[in-house]
Amino acid sequence: MGHLMNADKVLAQVLKSHQEKLEAELKAIVGTEPLALYDMLRYHMGWQDEHGRASRQRAGKLIRPTLCLLSCQAVGGDVGQILPAAAALELIHNFSLIHDDIEDNDSMRHNRLTVWKLWGQRQDINAVDAMFTLAYLALLRLKEKGISDNKIVPCATMLTETCLRLCEGQYLDMSYENRLDVTIEEYLTMIAKKTAALLGASSRLGAFLGSEDEKLVACFYQFGKELGLAFQIHDDILGIWGVEERTGKSKSSDISKKKKTLPVLYGLREASSAVKEELATLYSQEPIEGEDIAKIATIFDRIGARDYAQALAKEHYHQSLAQLEKTGLPVSQLTQLKQFVFSLMERDY
Amino acid sequence: MGHLMNADKVLAQVLKSHQEKLEAELKAIVGTEPLALYDMLRYHMGWQDEHGRASRQRAGKLIRPTLCLLSCQAVGGDVGQILPAAAALELIHNFSLIHDDIEDNDSMRHNRLTVWKLWGQRQDINAVDAMFTLAYLALLRLKEKGISDNKIVPCATMLTETCLRLCEGQYLDMSYENRLDVTIEEYLTMIAKKTAALLGASSRLGAFLGSEDEKLVACFYQFGKELGLAFQIHDDILGIWGVEERTGKSKSSDISKKKKTLPVLYGLREASSAVKEELATLYSQEPIEGEDIAKIATIFDRIGARDYAQALAKEHYHQSLAQLEKTGLPVSQLTQLKQFVFSLMERDY
Repeated sequence: MGHLMNADKVLAQVLKSHQEKLEAELKAIVGTEPLALYDMLRYHMGWQDEHGRASRQRAGKLIRPTLCLLSCQAVGGDVGQILPAAAALELIHNFSLIHDDIEDNDSMRHNRLTVWKLWGQRQDINAVDAMFTLAYLALLRLKEKGISDNKIVPCATMLTETCLRLCEGQYLDMSYENRLDVTIEEYLTMIAKKTAALLGASSRLGAFLGSEDEKLVACFYQFGKELGLAFQIHDDILGIWGVEERTGKSKSSDISKKKKTLPVLYGLREASSAVKEELATLYSQEPIEGEDIAKIATIFDRIGARDYAQALAKEHYHQSLAQLEKTGLPVSQLTQLKQFVFSLMERDY
Repeated sequence: MGHLMNADKVLAQVLKSHQEKLEAELKAIVGTEPLALYDMLRYHMGWQDEHGRASRQRAGKLIRPTLCLLSCQAVGGDVGQILPAAAALELIHNFSLIHDDIEDNDSMRHNRLTVWKLWGQRQDINAVDAMFTLAYLALLRLKEKGISDNKIVPCATMLTETCLRLCEGQYLDMSYENRLDVTIEEYLTMIAKKTAALLGASSRLGAFLGSEDEKLVACFYQFGKELGLAFQIHDDILGIWGVEERTGKSKSSDISKKKKTLPVLYGLREASSAVKEELATLYSQEPIEGEDIAKIATIFDRIGARDYAQALAKEHYHQSLAQLEKTGLPVSQLTQLKQFVFSLMERDY
């Protein structure tokens, strides 16, 4: 127990150190250019308030870059050298967040007004583009860290292919909203693109920049993708049964918006015909509001949708760990990465 | 005269050959993936109708990639090898077009419904992202053409910095709409980012991929930027006094939308106080419609706004040609590029 607490402490210190360096890197990339276009980005990143005053309004969880750095560290790479790649992943993630907000018409994120809500939809689109572009600018900073062009080009290819998967996943997610016949298989295809691709790219890039061993890199890629599936399913569960104050989103907005997340798809499939009718009536509302949200959550829970989703998340989590075992790396080198992944799957926000 | 006609014929053949190869390259990049996300892109590019049926609905002018290829050719490079870079430029241009349509709320482009009008604003944003991402995928195909990583990385940096300038320019353009005090200097800063940066990048990339001579590449960069300024000012003139059937836009939409283009800024600045009052009344309408559009165009013409804009376009055009002279390349190597540029400045659509 004492040993475990020490390990936790060590991880906390490592993460703190990584995150401080990452934030410095991110700030250097977004820059201090006074053009208001960049104010939108600095606001979104939580470094400024809406009046452009410096502030620390939100500390992002930095999951993707941390995964990248810990993967690099696990294969014996130099974490300091690959910070630009880690920053690029965080910028791609934030690009997709600003996007989601406008596409989902969300006014709030992390208890703050969203960018489009403050600057309007038209300028928001420009902010989205700038964030995307800066991700590439970040990646290209690897050169200044002494990474060779022969390494940078494949990294750019990985990032680009990941972005395409993100676009495809986002497209599919939205196309599912008005369908009641989405299958669990279709859902898994969608989250593989929308979420798992970026987590896969994060561990892959970290390992690729830290090692020349292709087989090792392939394991880290699979590890990240499996983790991504587990992570998204876990997120779906929190989207229905999570604690509002911690997620920073309005309660059960996933149900309210009729998002076809895994528990919903399972519930719709497994419900008895009487319950199916009840659900059809509840789902015919536009939007679903108030007590009906809690009612639907309870129905799904009773059908076993929550248990089913938890079991599937666990399965992918274990598959991700199996990929780490497959690397053949000494246990001590994988400890921090495994601890970090464990904390992700235990989170309730 | 006979000589000139022959030269025109040769150029026409060269352009046709370039454009066929470019279209093949672009089609290979966008691909045949059945996912409807890509249908939006294929529709926008004019290769499909709105039902997904193959068609040839629009032949793009391909100005930017052509500029890239002709610049490469002028410095003695291998045009076939750099097609992916030329395609990337065209995709970035098209990314910005789909954007403009949604940001400007335009329903029509080239006499066809715009992507957002057909697929909705939310899915349109995903199409925009995919187009942007494909531009990078295109550029990275240079590797398959045997271009070294040491060349590809600087190309990616050039493309990325250009995209940032585009975002900044688009941001400024929109921020000017509701201001009546935009100066001509501010306007020139905006078009340098919004238009000239991409034309500059086009000739720069072509020269860079075709030559190792940094001074030569710098001349081509300046050439493209100056040409871009001339091109945009010419476009502004056509936006007020152009022929609707040829531009494919609704007549004088620039005035209707109160765009602060160069002739407008000049007109607002130079009008007598009586005319200023008249303009203020006309501009207080939301939007400006019908006969008032023609009235405003006539007022600006009388003030000399058209002449002023034409003179400035000509000046930048001559500066662009001066940069070509500065290269010291033999006249014969520059002929086709010069002819092409001449045709751009003579266009009435």
